[in-house]
Amino acid sequence: MSQNLIVSGQTLLTMDDEQQVIENGAVLIEGDTIAAIGGREELTRRHPGARVLHREHGLVMPGLINTHTHAAMTCFRGLADDLPLMRWLEETIFPREARLSDEIVYLSSLIGLCEMIRSGTTSFCDMYLFSEAVIRATDQAGVRGWLGEVLYDFPSPCYGKLDNGFALMERLLATWRDHPLITITVNPHAVYTCSPELLSRLGRMAADHDALYHVHLSETADEVKTCRDRYGRTPVHHLEDLGLLGPRVLAAHCVVLDPEEIALLARHQVKIAHCPESNMKLASGTAPAVEMLAAGLCLSIGTDGPASNNDHDLFGEMNTMAKVHKLTRMDPTVMSADQVLWAATRGGAEALAADRIIGSLEPGKKADLIVLDLNAPHLVPLYNPVSHLVYAARPDDVVHSVINGRLVMEDRRILSLDEEAVLAGVDEIKRFILSLH
Amino acid sequence: MSQNLIVSGQTLLTMDDEQQVIENGAVLIEGDTIAAIGGREELTRRHPGARVLHREHGLVMPGLINTHTHAAMTCFRGLADDLPLMRWLEETIFPREARLSDEIVYLSSLIGLCEMIRSGTTSFCDMYLFSEAVIRATDQAGVRGWLGEVLYDFPSPCYGKLDNGFALMERLLATWRDHPLITITVNPHAVYTCSPELLSRLGRMAADHDALYHVHLSETADEVKTCRDRYGRTPVHHLEDLGLLGPRVLAAHCVVLDPEEIALLARHQVKIAHCPESNMKLASGTAPAVEMLAAGLCLSIGTDGPASNNDHDLFGEMNTMAKVHKLTRMDPTVMSADQVLWAATRGGAEALAADRIIGSLEPGKKADLIVLDLNAPHLVPLYNPVSHLVYAARPDDVVHSVINGRLVMEDRRILSLDEEAVLAGVDEIKRFILSLH
Repeated sequence: MSQNLIVSGQTLLTMDDEQQVIENGAVLIEGDTIAAIGGREELTRRHPGARVLHREHGLVMPGLINTHTHAAMTCFRGLADDLPLMRWLEETIFPREARLSDEIVYLSSLIGLCEMIRSGTTSFCDMYLFSEAVIRATDQAGVRGWLGEVLYDFPSPCYGKLDNGFALMERLLATWRDHPLITITVNPHAVYTCSPELLSRLGRMAADHDALYHVHLSETADEVKTCRDRYGRTPVHHLEDLGLLGPRVLAAHCVVLDPEEIALLARHQVKIAHCPESNMKLASGTAPAVEMLAAGLCLSIGTDGPASNNDHDLFGEMNTMAKVHKLTRMDPTVMSADQVLWAATRGGAEALAADRIIGSLEPGKKADLIVLDLNAPHLVPLYNPVSHLVYAARPDDVVHSVINGRLVMEDRRILSLDEEAVLAGVDEIKRFILSLH
Repeated sequence: MSQNLIVSGQTLLTMDDEQQVIENGAVLIEGDTIAAIGGREELTRRHPGARVLHREHGLVMPGLINTHTHAAMTCFRGLADDLPLMRWLEETIFPREARLSDEIVYLSSLIGLCEMIRSGTTSFCDMYLFSEAVIRATDQAGVRGWLGEVLYDFPSPCYGKLDNGFALMERLLATWRDHPLITITVNPHAVYTCSPELLSRLGRMAADHDALYHVHLSETADEVKTCRDRYGRTPVHHLEDLGLLGPRVLAAHCVVLDPEEIALLARHQVKIAHCPESNMKLASGTAPAVEMLAAGLCLSIGTDGPASNNDHDLFGEMNTMAKVHKLTRMDPTVMSADQVLWAATRGGAEALAADRIIGSLEPGKKADLIVLDLNAPHLVPLYNPVSHLVYAARPDDVVHSVINGRLVMEDRRILSLDEEAVLAGVDEIKRFILSLH
């Protein structure tokens, strides 16, 4: 049995229901699990055999949860920006995605995973092509992932025709069933790329396996128009008609919603992956996140892929999220730092149906936590740690990361991957992407 | 005479008029001045006696320019967020500002300056109380500053009654006239806090000394309404009526403008300090920056003070600026990364009437430059350095900073200040601020 680990710092932010904050607090980790939370002196005295990882100016908190990304799209980071959406998709992204390979997706995912670890993300939810490569990379990185192959009506560069896609999904669901970190999700791309039959068939698959049904939903006005033209219904009502709305649906974006749709999503306990930066960069709009919270919807945060963000930085995303709703509502009191940090931790856990195991630091939960060093000019004075986390902290403030009880980053050195080797893979990615026209 | 310095990296972004980018490029610095730009091998061969600071994966570029902040407001960082603007100002900020001291402003400015150096800012423009403390701190930090006392109709905790404020300003203008890094600016707070007489008297002072006239302008709808109620004119027209618009005016915010006012500002060659994050956080709105650029206005970027941002991070500000205009215009092609980076460098230099000496890396200009290390997971692959600088880079990517030929940060260690001692001042700041009610 491995040695117990105590992680401690100046402040411990539990993010539990009572929002307990413990000064000079510590977390005792046994195996993959949080065994106790408390004062540092008491825990270290009571567990003299434990290894103690103490940071004098450390803020210990739950790891951040990114509920919507496409990590492998790291390969497209900065390849094309500031273009009209359809030109960007049709000229830059789609033709290149059609020629991606398992190898490129694997190498690109590893880079994205290093970026996530370095920026305090301990869990993420991803949908992409060549998902076995994403899963392989995630498993190696020791990051907690909700992953699966994206399916749509068209032939896939990964699996070819749709039946093969279903076979691949069944294989993934079987292979990774009992993995401590990897959970397979069912991923219809969107209502405009998936026939009603495909959407329904995947709905049955998700139900059969009690898996998340992760889908892009109402991302743009164009999507809504296309869906209306084709089915006479908005995307939300289209899914409702198909009997697909429900608590295992993780709906990414949800930018274009009317109040009635928000109520409908809330009634069905659909979970929202809010991606403010991507929605801004692609000029899709701003999701009505304030109204969603008011309706009792579970709000979580996604970065979306690095082709439209262009990063996996949840600190930046929190900062933007807190500000953009103040702007669009012209009200500085909405989307408080507390609400935003909740979305990045507890909201994320709930969105992934994992609130029982992650999202807060509480005995019995899995040990997914990060430590930030607050002794930096941009983080002082410290009046309110939540304010700093949302409005001032940056990825590089994260010094340690523990996922499932394993130290994956210590003093900003990634332990679960050979980062130098990962970065050496960039040349191959770049050469390949630039060779595609 | 000090040894010449060659700073080199993988890519040199000159930001000159031709937007010249030199692979494996270098800058030769003699004293405070850029003596040459070119290929690394050639420059090092031709100048064998120079010290070479080479970074294998380095991006060498002009230092960033922050044209509107209140560095000392670092003391209020995170003290109160998410409040209605007037409550925030009247309950949190104003009562505490009324009791600030030279010492607190000095200590807080030093922290803000460390933050700026660490985040790649080499020049900033600041208006605040106890400006002599800001100037002292800036001089010690070796940062290039446009600084001065803020004036308004009310008694100041710094100088007391207005006549003393004028005397202080005259003294500052005389004392710092020939300083290589410090330039004194004239700072009427705003049209709603300064009488027409005060605005005019300061206008004469600025003209007499050829100094910048740095003023908050049309920041909020409330300001416009107050000005209309009081003078029957918008803030812009009010300044026009007073004959105060002109090329030495640096107008911060300019959120609430109509097209005719934009044209008027352009005609008078007024310079704009655009502060998107502060305007979002305080729910003031979004400045019509796209329209300003179209009108030919000089657009630069300010973070505003850390009480309303909550940082001095120009990388984050660039990222937000590029995205927020795409959102408000619902057009992903506006406010390109190139335009944003221009605003943060050349635009800033022009706004400070300093385009002749800073803003780009060109022989004859002052040596103000930074080096970023691009060998990081969030900055690969590299297809377009400008895209990465705006959409993916972070303060911590800046490894070296040179200001006026002096290395102020090397390998993320600040050389011009004792950062540990500066951070030790935080306790005094926090104790003082919390003692005020």
